[in-house]
Amino acid sequence: MSEEGKPVSFDGLACPLPLAEHPTVQMAHGGGGRMSQKLVGGMFLEAFDNPVLRTLHDGALVELGGARLAFSTDSFVIRPLFFPGGDIGSLAVHGTVNDVAMCGARPLVISAAFILEEGFPMEDLWRITRSMKGAAADAGVTVVTGDTKVVDRGKGDGVYINTSGLGLLQDGVEISPLRARPGDVVLLSGAIAVHGIAIMSVREGLEFETRLESDSAALNSMVASLLETAGEDVHVLRDPTRGGVASALNEIAAGAGVGIRLDEASIPISEEVRGGCEILGLDPLYVANEGKCLAIVERSAADATLAAMREHPRGGEAAIIGEVVAEPAGTVVLHSRIGGERIVDMLSGEQLPRIC
Amino acid sequence: MSEEGKPVSFDGLACPLPLAEHPTVQMAHGGGGRMSQKLVGGMFLEAFDNPVLRTLHDGALVELGGARLAFSTDSFVIRPLFFPGGDIGSLAVHGTVNDVAMCGARPLVISAAFILEEGFPMEDLWRITRSMKGAAADAGVTVVTGDTKVVDRGKGDGVYINTSGLGLLQDGVEISPLRARPGDVVLLSGAIAVHGIAIMSVREGLEFETRLESDSAALNSMVASLLETAGEDVHVLRDPTRGGVASALNEIAAGAGVGIRLDEASIPISEEVRGGCEILGLDPLYVANEGKCLAIVERSAADATLAAMREHPRGGEAAIIGEVVAEPAGTVVLHSRIGGERIVDMLSGEQLPRIC
Repeated sequence: MSEEGKPVSFDGLACPLPLAEHPTVQMAHGGGGRMSQKLVGGMFLEAFDNPVLRTLHDGALVELGGARLAFSTDSFVIRPLFFPGGDIGSLAVHGTVNDVAMCGARPLVISAAFILEEGFPMEDLWRITRSMKGAAADAGVTVVTGDTKVVDRGKGDGVYINTSGLGLLQDGVEISPLRARPGDVVLLSGAIAVHGIAIMSVREGLEFETRLESDSAALNSMVASLLETAGEDVHVLRDPTRGGVASALNEIAAGAGVGIRLDEASIPISEEVRGGCEILGLDPLYVANEGKCLAIVERSAADATLAAMREHPRGGEAAIIGEVVAEPAGTVVLHSRIGGERIVDMLSGEQLPRIC
Repeated sequence: MSEEGKPVSFDGLACPLPLAEHPTVQMAHGGGGRMSQKLVGGMFLEAFDNPVLRTLHDGALVELGGARLAFSTDSFVIRPLFFPGGDIGSLAVHGTVNDVAMCGARPLVISAAFILEEGFPMEDLWRITRSMKGAAADAGVTVVTGDTKVVDRGKGDGVYINTSGLGLLQDGVEISPLRARPGDVVLLSGAIAVHGIAIMSVREGLEFETRLESDSAALNSMVASLLETAGEDVHVLRDPTRGGVASALNEIAAGAGVGIRLDEASIPISEEVRGGCEILGLDPLYVANEGKCLAIVERSAADATLAAMREHPRGGEAAIIGEVVAEPAGTVVLHSRIGGERIVDMLSGEQLPRIC
């Protein structure tokens, strides 16, 4: 790093993230677990501190010119770029559409910013672009602005894509990770760990009886249906991507100061995915999903919400998987198939690098 | 590239960008010149075609929930990360703030998405983060959402940053590159080519009598002042970044179907920058600026607009540099110091890679 030209506004304040523990960036800082939390909380939140950012929602809720908007950003660095069930282009659309939808908003427009590596085959870029176009059309969003940068060979990995998205919140909708409260019910829209295991099966050359495809999909129509059904009784929505269901629920439990109890037997998972997890030594609760939605709802609305999920083409396997409790606050506890209980903590390390 | 899992929505349509001419991504596809135009026009515009994107404005103008918004995205891949007058963090804030401002909007919120390379010193990330914080505070924008990804060592270059921004358009403001019309006057807010030459001086180890610093700065307060002064008489605003003043004006001339005549003697440039350009064999008209604003205004409003620019702390050297004419349409012509005329075309190749 050149010592030339220290940033003008660098004021010499010490970094709030302990540098002795975190001297350099590690893969786990991007894994969605405890190391990610430390980097985001200890550096970015400290620097940019404001009430909107501090909610750590999937997107920001902002009011501009009288309009209530959800605004979200995500960069995609997945490898391989093409995988069973999708590619980096469709994933980049689904990811941001879903982050906006999880705020309870209707996604309308997105941006697309490409960081291309010199020498990347143009035909592959065209495949990715076509795929983005299809995914955007399917989700009903318009790509209204973009950017293209090229970096030298060996300074990228084919293509990285950032998408940012904007959606409109309807009156009366108030979805926030802080709204989980004791007595609420936890629903999940389908089988877990499919995306992560589909990606790992390509990387590791695993063979399954049927071809395992990523669940990457836009969830905005499902969210619209849930809100139509249960309205204000929907308290929290979250798509359990990096870090899986376990990390998403831990973040919610910590943020809202509640406990979450899960019933292992009711968490949908396919035999193939379970087998893949065993071979790879992964806990499926921590494996990424790209087309699944967690909903935490008022108990009285749980059955109607479950029925609405199951009616959706992507929600046939939806289930009630647990409940919100008062104690132990900030903790996710799993009631296992064989009767025991265990704490489902945040991961401290990196389980699956570059899964999204 | 794995042949596994072709994207679901890839429909086999041939790429509209001639692949025989563009088999792979080249540095020039990100340079802001003719190759960039071909990639954006021949691939991304063809795929995502819609009226908002087609204006090729610095940002998109969208109406959501009754609010008129400008929405812009930019990824920053500059090297070195720290340079005289700024760093990738402040630049990432200024770039997106300016793109939103050039739509005639007041920038309010931005996102910050980091792609970090494994092994990057955390202290450098803190310097960059602090610098973003300072730049955002100075520009009056709030960082409301973000994302962090980590890629393996050797698959990035320290840090890449994407910022996306949102701003609010006031009633009556209508800024568009399509609004340039014969008779309009072209203004520039200060001396050209400073950012590009400051970066190149670090890369190439050039020595100047005084230390040459990038002009990287937020221009939203200047734009607000111009709009207050000249209102609807301001037709086009543009910050001439990648590709410089020449590329920005060529895009406007082509888009609006007008000619632009420039008077070389009235284009502000410092002796140091001119000398740097000579040593490096660069035409300063094509070198990037990061704190300068082009304004194309109604002739009757030119003097008042110029006075408003000069009153701004960043506009002391503002000048009228040319005019819009009917013919030759789509062309920028420079009336040189020594009396001749030459066409100032788009660059076809890449002059300065990774300048922003």
